[in-house]
This record gives sequence, C-alpha cells and structure tokens, in this order.
Amino acid sequence: MSTITAISTAPGIGGIAVIRVSGKDAVKNCNEIFAPKKKSFSLFQQNAYTISFGSIINKQKEIIDDVLMAVFRAPHSFTGEDIVEISCHGSVFVQQEILHLLLEQGCVLAQPGEFTQRAFMNGKMDLSQAEAVADLIASTSAASHRMALNQMRGGFSSELLKLRTQLLDFVSLVELELDFNEEDVEFADRTKLKTLATEIGILIAKLADSFRVGNALKNGVPVALVGETNVGKSTLLNFLLNEDKAIVSDIHGTTRDTIEDSVNIKGITFRFIDTAGIRDTKDKIENMGIERTYKKIEQAAIILWILDCTQLSEHMEWLTNRIEKKAEGKKIILVFNKIDKIAEEEREVLNQLFEQFKGERIYISARERINTEGLKRALINAAQLPDINPGDVVVSNIRHYEALKKAQEAISRVVNGLDSGISGDFLSQDIRECMHFLGEITGQISNDEILGNIFGKFCIGK
Amino acid sequence: MSTITAISTAPGIGGIAVIRVSGKDAVKNCNEIFAPKKKSFSLFQQNAYTISFGSIINKQKEIIDDVLMAVFRAPHSFTGEDIVEISCHGSVFVQQEILHLLLEQGCVLAQPGEFTQRAFMNGKMDLSQAEAVADLIASTSAASHRMALNQMRGGFSSELLKLRTQLLDFVSLVELELDFNEEDVEFADRTKLKTLATEIGILIAKLADSFRVGNALKNGVPVALVGETNVGKSTLLNFLLNEDKAIVSDIHGTTRDTIEDSVNIKGITFRFIDTAGIRDTKDKIENMGIERTYKKIEQAAIILWILDCTQLSEHMEWLTNRIEKKAEGKKIILVFNKIDKIAEEEREVLNQLFEQFKGERIYISARERINTEGLKRALINAAQLPDINPGDVVVSNIRHYEALKKAQEAISRVVNGLDSGISGDFLSQDIRECMHFLGEITGQISNDEILGNIFGKFCIGK
Repeated sequence: MSTITAISTAPGIGGIAVIRVSGKDAVKNCNEIFAPKKKSFSLFQQNAYTISFGSIINKQKEIIDDVLMAVFRAPHSFTGEDIVEISCHGSVFVQQEILHLLLEQGCVLAQPGEFTQRAFMNGKMDLSQAEAVADLIASTSAASHRMALNQMRGGFSSELLKLRTQLLDFVSLVELELDFNEEDVEFADRTKLKTLATEIGILIAKLADSFRVGNALKNGVPVALVGETNVGKSTLLNFLLNEDKAIVSDIHGTTRDTIEDSVNIKGITFRFIDTAGIRDTKDKIENMGIERTYKKIEQAAIILWILDCTQLSEHMEWLTNRIEKKAEGKKIILVFNKIDKIAEEEREVLNQLFEQFKGERIYISARERINTEGLKRALINAAQLPDINPGDVVVSNIRHYEALKKAQEAISRVVNGLDSGISGDFLSQDIRECMHFLGEITGQISNDEILGNIFGKFCIGK
Repeated sequence: MSTITAISTAPGIGGIAVIRVSGKDAVKNCNEIFAPKKKSFSLFQQNAYTISFGSIINKQKEIIDDVLMAVFRAPHSFTGEDIVEISCHGSVFVQQEILHLLLEQGCVLAQPGEFTQRAFMNGKMDLSQAEAVADLIASTSAASHRMALNQMRGGFSSELLKLRTQLLDFVSLVELELDFNEEDVEFADRTKLKTLATEIGILIAKLADSFRVGNALKNGVPVALVGETNVGKSTLLNFLLNEDKAIVSDIHGTTRDTIEDSVNIKGITFRFIDTAGIRDTKDKIENMGIERTYKKIEQAAIILWILDCTQLSEHMEWLTNRIEKKAEGKKIILVFNKIDKIAEEEREVLNQLFEQFKGERIYISARERINTEGLKRALINAAQLPDINPGDVVVSNIRHYEALKKAQEAISRVVNGLDSGISGDFLSQDIRECMHFLGEITGQISNDEILGNIFGKFCIGK
C-alpha cells in the first residue's frame, strides 16, 4: 500500500494550509524533508497526537517554509494508518513546493476521497459513514448538515445493523429446516415468520420513504413554474432566484449543475425549474416544448401554477384539466400574479372561476413585490419537510435508496412466499438477497467499481 | 486584550478547514464548545503542542462536527498568546457554525492580519518579518517566495540591526562631545567619523538599491510596448499575455489590479504595459495619448520598441529621437515585426537605417510565431535579475524602500556635515533621524496608522 499525500484544505491562498500524508512511510517521508527546530530531534521520536515546529527543506537543504508537523499513528488515526499533517503558510507556491518534495520522497498523489476510502478499508467506518463525510463537507444548510452528521456518526449504520440481526435470526430459522430437508419438518412457525418479515419490511420501507425528505433537503425541493406565456413567470423566477441567491452561490467549489436555480429559503433549499408556456396549439415545435413542460411537472414536488389576473385565458378549463392531471399527487399552488392591476371585487370573480380547485391559492405581484413573503411561506408549507433532529435517520443518498428499494422487494417476496407457502430454500434465497442489498449500503458487500464511483466524487485531500 | 478567532484556511470547501483562536480565553472558550472523546477530559488539562479528538457542540448539546483540537500555550505560540487550532471538516456550513459558536462564547472576529500583528506586538517578530508573512503567503514564484522567506526568517532584520549598532556607536561618539559642549572639545576624530558615516551610507544604499530587483521580482518587471499604430503591438501583446497566462491567473484570491497584464516567463514575472501609438501630430486629443505613452515609458524598466518591417514611418528619425530621449537609462529592445513579409536582403537595409541604435534588436513575426522564443530570451536578459540565494537580503517592500531612502538622505547630510564642519548637535540630529527611519522598518518606531496600513492588507485568519 502506497503512502499518499494531498493538500487537504480548500484550494487557493489562505493564512495556513494543511498537507496530509498517510501510509506506512508517512513519518519516514516527512522526516526526510523536515528540519526540526530542536536539533537532534526526529519525527520518529515524536509521540502520536503531538505537534512539533520546524522547517521544510529541499534536497539542497534550502528552507521552503516554517511549519508545524502533527503526527498520528496507526491505528489511531482518521485512515487507520500513520498520518502526518503539515501545517504550512497558505501560499499556493509553498503548498505546491511541499507537495512536490513529498512526491520526490516516494509519496503518491492521493486520489479524490482516498483518505476516506482507506479509513473504510481499514475498518474505521462503514461505507455509508464514509459517504456521509463527503455529504458533510458539501452541506450548505442546517438540515443537510445534520443528516450528514447523523449518518457519519453511525445512526444509519446502527439501524442497518439492527435489520441485519433480525434478518439473520430469520434466515437461521428457515435454514435450520433446510438441514432437515428430507424429513420435511417445519420448525419455524409460519405465522411468526410472517410477522417478523412484515416488521422488517416496514422498517426498510420507512428508511426508503425517508429518501423523499432526505433528497429534498440535500438536493433541494424541485418546484416547477408553470403557466401560459406572459403571465410573469420570468419576473417571479428572477425574484425567487436573486433575492436569496447569495446564500447558495456564495459557496465556492460546488459543481452541481443546478446551482444557478437553487435557493435557500428559510433553511430549505428549493430547486426552481422554469418551463415553456402551455397552451392549446397545433404547432409541432411548440408542442414539443409543452411535452417537456409535462415531464418537468412530473419531476417536481411542487407546482407553482401562475396566472395573470388581468388576462385569464379563454382555455382556462382545458388548462386546468391538463395541469391537474399531470400534477396528480403533487402540491399545486395557484399563484394569481399582477394582483396590483385589478380591483378588490375582481378577486371574487377569480375565486369563483377556480371554485373547483382544491389546492392553496395566493395573490401576489412579482414585479411590485406584493405578498412575495406569503408565497415563500406557502412554498415552505408545501415542501412539508419535517425538522431533522439529532439522531434522526434520514436517507439522502440515492445509492442507499436504490439498495433499500431492492431490499424492500426481496422482503416483499418473502412475505408473499410465506402466504403462498413456498419452500424454505426459496425463502432463504430471498432473505439472503435482502441482506445482500443492505450489506451494499454499509460496504460489507462492495466491489472496486462501486467504491470507485463513491470515492471518485469526493474532493481531493479528504 | 480580546480573544480573537478566524477561519485560517483558504475560503471555500476543502477536505478540512482550520479555525484559529488566540488570546487569554482561547482555551476556556474552546473548552465550552468541546466534548472530548475521552470523558472527564478538558482542554485545560491538555498539554501544549498536543492534539485531542472530540466533537464541537452547541448550547443544546447538539453535535456540530467531529474535530481535532491543537493547543499551544503562551508565550510559545505564533502570536505569543494561548492558541487553539480547531481542525474541522471543510464544509462552509460547518466552518461558519463553529465560528458562530466561538463568537457566542465571547471571541471577537479577527481583523485581517491580526494574528500576525499580535505576534509583532508580543515581540515574536519585528515588523519587517511580520510583513514578510503576508508576502510569503502571496508569493507566486520561486524568487518572490525566497525573498519573503529570507525576510521572514530575519535576514533583513539582522542587516538593520548591524546598521543600528554602527549608528549607535557613531552617535555616542558625537554625543559624548555634546556633554562637554562648553569646553569645545573634539573627542571624535572627524576623518574616522567620515569613514564610518560613508560606510553606513554605502550599506544603506546597497539595501535601497536592491529594491529594483526586489520590486521587479515581487510585482513584475514593467515592460512598455511602444510603437506607431498598426505595427502589430496588439498581436504581440496578446501573444505575450496569453501564452503563459495560466501560470499567473491560475492562482485564486490574488487581487492585484495588473493581474491581467502580468505573465511569468521562465520564472520571472513581467508586467506588460500597452501604450497609445506615437506619431508627430497636431491633434490635441491624440497628443494627450502620446503624453501618457511617455509617462508609461518612464515607469517601465524595459521598452519594447516595435516596428513594422514592411512599412517604416517617414518620421523614423523624429521617432527614434523621442523614444531614446524618454527612455534614457532604460533597456530598449528594437523589435522588427512582420519579418515574414520581407526578403532576406531587406533586413540589411533595416539594419543600416538603425545603425545609430545601440540596444538589442530582434526580428520576429508575432502573428506567425517566428522567433518569439528569441524575444522572450531578450526580455529575460534585459530584466537583468540576479538569482536570489538563501540568505540574500533583497528589499521588496516599498515602505521599506522609502524608509531606506530617507535614512540614506539623513546619512548623506551627516557626511556632508562632516565635510563642512557643522557642529556635533546637528550631526547627532541627523544620525538620530537615520536611526529613526531604520527603526520604522523593524517597527521599533511605529504608530497605529502605520500598523493599520500594514496589517489591513493581510488576509483574514493570518
């Protein structure tokens, strides 16, 4: 196993920067480029969890920087290997020079996430905890931070461990029968087994269901802005995006494609999706745009259906039908825009027109900033996101969600199998499959491709 | 004195980030928000230069992050005060949360450079060393890095100390006479005094002269591109700026105004200055542009005088005179551009035309990239920048340069005064003035305004 190194702090100029070295030669390689202030001292003598002061020197004994060296020793370190952390002046030039000297000593540049991957490999954390490290680093809101922290500290892992223990109990009961197969016995009470399988199924379903909240908190609640052209969609979108935009775009280094459309409103991230105007038309190109709008409605959790108070379409009934049909099961907020342009009594007419509409309705002027706070409140209500408390287990990772869904299918087959009285070896196979998918989450079951996918998304230096 | 805190690593997302706390309550404030892994342990018990593992918690005992806490104790720390460095996950959210908790505990957000300012205040380094910390962090080339490091490690300071000791010897000789003023004695041999003053003057002049090199290495060698319109100045400028631009613009966080015009060529930074075309004209506006060009020639160290081989101006003699007059004492490189457009024998004609010109001449085509490497070599030669070796004292700070020039004037007055036989008290006054200006460099003489100017230019967290 090579000794790896990387700059672990954010790229660019800072007061200080930290270069991390991990592996069996970490102390040796760092000692070679270190001139301690205390002569006759060496990093080999340095106790774990202590810091020494000195200079980094190159082969010509020229000083590159004055630094602090922190030493951690296997297995009591983040990676479980020997680690040296070099705290140097935050000049880009100095950082690069020190990195270069370490590579000369035989260190290898760490791949993204390789420190965390080694922590996983050395049993310092399971895979879901390792993934939470990346989520924690990327977290931009209180909720996404708390989810990641809970997961990193093993909340999710211990839920999975509980499930696994129950499944093991279950499968051992079933497999005990298989040993006596020829005698055609049934040790395990089928009713009890069904109760157990159903309970496990409910627990898995609960975790899988939490993904709706987890995903929304992590990636933002998808909100589609729908309406005819010229109803003020763009003005509203600009208002929503710009007012609080700094909160999100402030953060350097994030690379999510949707960042220009994401906004944090009172702690909840919303992802606003603009759509082409909908109307009844025979124009082929326009109809393609409308089809795309329908797709976006399907992807959204909340629909902002925007109407121009001053100019209701003659196709309103047709439109209402189409949108309500496409948005079935989703929250629709009816937004009456340009409210400043109509008289009080005209509102009543509007209300009667939409008598049939069950969802929330709100009156605003995007341009004049009338009741935009009300719209924000309506959005937060519609998001229906619970507070995340310390210790709450919320699944926010799509890989985990997919594994949970597969585990859910497998346990459903077990319940159905028990109903239809299938044989023990089929039951056993399905239970084992369920355990397999849960094991994929914690990394008990993994392969290089899965690991490459997971850690490749980390930043370098972590 | 308040306890200060700041994020000391570069802004943005990284694997880890470091939050620094310095002051008498550093340990107390950090202990309040720290839940050590080892129960019943507290930061008060933690030895200096050691690290402990645990969690940062808020007032509701909710965990914010798992961190490492490094403790340093006064006076053996960077600032000379108690310091705690919190190494947390590099999420922007986590960094802000921890900072927020520290402010709640009574810490104050550090001003830019305040940690280094405290190091200066507590006698950990003199002012020129403190300034070198900022230069070191901003260094982008091997030469600027080495200058800053030499200065930070006290090379310049010890030169100044030597000068100060000599000046003290000198002034005490002179002031001894003053005590016996009424008796009109002369203890000090005037010839010896003059030798001493001259030697000191030479040393100060040497330091002041090194600023040409130091400033060029730190801020780039100023190169003015001069010539008539349409001779290919823009093409050449674009070539020079773009080819190696990444080397400079790569570095985040630098805020120098001239960055778009600075390029690192083989380790030396050049600052290219475009100018308006020069020609003999009566147009008032155009003449104003030409006046600005003359100013820029005066600011430059190297003049690239660009000619179009295919179209020599009829005013060539007039132009030659003007440029050579304005650029007196500077390096002029005569650049014959569009060399691909003329025949070999025409070159001879060109050469004869400029028989009188003493400087270097070079034949290129900026568009066709002919001999552009030759041009770069000519630039590096013309820059005449020596290599900086470890231990070399090179002044790169304009504040130091200005103080040295004033010290130089004072010591010149001493030499002249000795020649003209002025009285001891005038001599003493000039020597004291010389010492005063040298003391401004090291910070023995300073005031809040000077300090504010210096440390205000630092990054926060250093």
